[in-house]
Amino acid sequence: MSFDTSSWLAQARALIGPAHVLSADNGDDLTPYTRDWRGKFQGPALAVLRPGSTAEVQALVRLAARTGVALVPQGGNTGLCGASVPMAGGLQAVLQLGRLKRIREIDPENNTATVEAGCILQTLQEQAGAVGRLFPLSLGAEGSCQIGGNIATNAGGVQVLRYGNMRELVLGLEVVLPDGEILDLLRGLRKDNTGYDLKQLFIGAEGTLGIITAATVKLFSAPSAEVVAFAGVASIAQAVRLLGAMRGHLGDRFTAFELISGPAVALVRRYFPETPALLSGDWPWYVLMEAADGGSDETLREAVQAALMACLEDECLEDVTLAGNLAQGQTLWSLRENITHAQQMDGSNIKHDVSLPISRIPAFVEQMLPRLQQAFPGARPIVYGHLGDGNLHFNLSAPEGVEAGTWQAQTEAVNQVLHDVVVAMRGSISAEHGIGQLKRHEMAMYKTPAELALMRRIKQALDPQGLMNPGKVL
Amino acid sequence: MSFDTSSWLAQARALIGPAHVLSADNGDDLTPYTRDWRGKFQGPALAVLRPGSTAEVQALVRLAARTGVALVPQGGNTGLCGASVPMAGGLQAVLQLGRLKRIREIDPENNTATVEAGCILQTLQEQAGAVGRLFPLSLGAEGSCQIGGNIATNAGGVQVLRYGNMRELVLGLEVVLPDGEILDLLRGLRKDNTGYDLKQLFIGAEGTLGIITAATVKLFSAPSAEVVAFAGVASIAQAVRLLGAMRGHLGDRFTAFELISGPAVALVRRYFPETPALLSGDWPWYVLMEAADGGSDETLREAVQAALMACLEDECLEDVTLAGNLAQGQTLWSLRENITHAQQMDGSNIKHDVSLPISRIPAFVEQMLPRLQQAFPGARPIVYGHLGDGNLHFNLSAPEGVEAGTWQAQTEAVNQVLHDVVVAMRGSISAEHGIGQLKRHEMAMYKTPAELALMRRIKQALDPQGLMNPGKVL
Repeated sequence: MSFDTSSWLAQARALIGPAHVLSADNGDDLTPYTRDWRGKFQGPALAVLRPGSTAEVQALVRLAARTGVALVPQGGNTGLCGASVPMAGGLQAVLQLGRLKRIREIDPENNTATVEAGCILQTLQEQAGAVGRLFPLSLGAEGSCQIGGNIATNAGGVQVLRYGNMRELVLGLEVVLPDGEILDLLRGLRKDNTGYDLKQLFIGAEGTLGIITAATVKLFSAPSAEVVAFAGVASIAQAVRLLGAMRGHLGDRFTAFELISGPAVALVRRYFPETPALLSGDWPWYVLMEAADGGSDETLREAVQAALMACLEDECLEDVTLAGNLAQGQTLWSLRENITHAQQMDGSNIKHDVSLPISRIPAFVEQMLPRLQQAFPGARPIVYGHLGDGNLHFNLSAPEGVEAGTWQAQTEAVNQVLHDVVVAMRGSISAEHGIGQLKRHEMAMYKTPAELALMRRIKQALDPQGLMNPGKVL
Repeated sequence: MSFDTSSWLAQARALIGPAHVLSADNGDDLTPYTRDWRGKFQGPALAVLRPGSTAEVQALVRLAARTGVALVPQGGNTGLCGASVPMAGGLQAVLQLGRLKRIREIDPENNTATVEAGCILQTLQEQAGAVGRLFPLSLGAEGSCQIGGNIATNAGGVQVLRYGNMRELVLGLEVVLPDGEILDLLRGLRKDNTGYDLKQLFIGAEGTLGIITAATVKLFSAPSAEVVAFAGVASIAQAVRLLGAMRGHLGDRFTAFELISGPAVALVRRYFPETPALLSGDWPWYVLMEAADGGSDETLREAVQAALMACLEDECLEDVTLAGNLAQGQTLWSLRENITHAQQMDGSNIKHDVSLPISRIPAFVEQMLPRLQQAFPGARPIVYGHLGDGNLHFNLSAPEGVEAGTWQAQTEAVNQVLHDVVVAMRGSISAEHGIGQLKRHEMAMYKTPAELALMRRIKQALDPQGLMNPGKVL
């Protein structure tokens, strides 16, 4: 029996209104929804469905289940692994959640917000800020990524050291299950031991177990003081010592600890020549640190200064500068943020997003750099990342003069050299970016058979028809 | 076909050694393992099995699966809901994990410890402390409860405000699945987005999905300063304002916020007459607060003092005392810890462990007190708990002169009056104690059909034979 597309589209239009069903036969351009922003993944879709309520999501999920059409849930489509666009073939529709964007409630006394999946991360940050609260998730795409996608991918970012990943920020979820049942777990509770913690299933599952439609998330007291410092260190081992020492001095006022390699700083300087020289000398590694607290900037700056002086004395760092004000702090952060842009301007690079126990990172980098140099002569490692979380973006830029296409063809070979060592040291081949389509084949290589079997059993239990974001993760 | 007990025992003895299989036919007294410490639950067991390694646990799980014998995993048997002892009938054995008690590794640079399920909580606290680290889980039973049980019940305690529940402290698990497969998820990573986060399934599942044999947990820099304060407030609403204000002033240095009702303080005074008068007047509610930080006691005390003065000015509290030293701080904490003992000495009481969004707690208590008074005249509410987490132990002591048996017969009726309101206000009927056998029948009353169905689907997917701790949770 052949599939009757126009009848299916008519049914979808009847459920959520014709204006909210985009399709090729209507002359709509689906590309913004069917291709990821890096242009690495693109797949066919019967339609792009834009429901306006949880009930409409439910109706669409039921239609999909009845007709055997797979659904690809999509937020801001800002992911790096192709999880939010259709796979190469098959009967699929994109379920775009951007119209479910209400902030249903902000409860400052309970320090929670209840927000729909399509709410832009930055909107939530701003609305929380308006009542003196902080929603701490912060990442490059915050102006366009959506909360539902942040949850489905368990997003990380630059404040994980202090506030945890998205998983730690979620107290409750509303989910439409693959059979169309609505699971209402929207509780704003810090403690609830009544049976299995079902929301955990959907966080980080990349939409393969159900459609997240809303969430209750934690808010925090907005800090009134922030201090940024930039240090030069002689080795990663010294950076790890610095991390431990600063954490000892500052406890949870310590909110970010970003490692940046000397070559990464040089690359930023090359493409952003306005970047000031921050320290008097050059160092093989640098660390960007941030602390935040209630109280005044001066009190915090004094505490950070005392901690840094102690670290200098204890030989946990070689040289350091403390931003004197907000603008100087932003200059330091923009150095960190411009690494990605500088790499793009510099040409082709192969990206990695690995994590390791922090104690093993010095040994990892020490053995990785010569090993990569030997296997790929001339390749230029640009290493940086959230050292405080054990998370490195270990990117490899093409050797000078090598064409992008030639270099990208080496991706699998580069990945294998790097990921073999990561996994042997009990690390992760995807710390914060997820699996999606990009790393799906690596799951079979690097996860144990027992883990894979259990994941499949969970998938089978929740989505026996296999209609939730097929071709992703598993 | 009848079950051949002696053949089964012989097989078990062959697998883990005769000394580690306790059974009635051997003259062993199984009662310490088959009855909970409060004497509320007791069930039959073929044997108490005490394996000494993960491989031995695996062998026993395979034996159990092959022979259809259910396993009841047990740690320190300190739970309050009967989850760690056999249910009333059926072919069961207790799997006592106390011999798996090694601390496999402490990694101070990664701030992690890898520890076996049977390790006593206090042992881990001490070993972490010996290298300048803090394992923050802290609860009354810490001298005898075991890490495996803490994980299986997602234990809470007095430091959740700052450090989270046990779930937030677990980075990795080793689990023997119901089919005998060993799931090795012992990774010490803060970030790992490679597929479903399988460890979450077993945390808080009370042993119904598999046997936890080891865990990698988070450690923290041990704080060098601690300050305790005790305040009188005019209402719970004022206590909630105080919580918000203190959190604003102190951020994460703020580690505990315990609410204690006036009658609870009076009860402690009655049975522990050495308890000093802490404030000059009497107040309807009191709050015990703790802050911790690196640095010196004086610096922290000054910060807390300034915060408390601001709170007094802003009418967030009525009167307050700050412990001048460690001993005074311990006196304040012993007041809190003696509530349970005083209640026991005072006679029969019906215990509750509820949580609510913090913003709703004033309204909840306001409507609950008269409602209980009306339904159960003369009953004496002893209310206290972790207000910072929205968690109240709302206990109801028997009216003066009413016998324990008569009062306990009211348990279901009391529970229903209280829990109906809790659930209507979107709270939890078990914030930290779990479900076990005690509240299992209430799951059907208070969880939605969609939640219960999904829990059963998970149970079925992992434990199709139903041999993991039957009669608990679901």
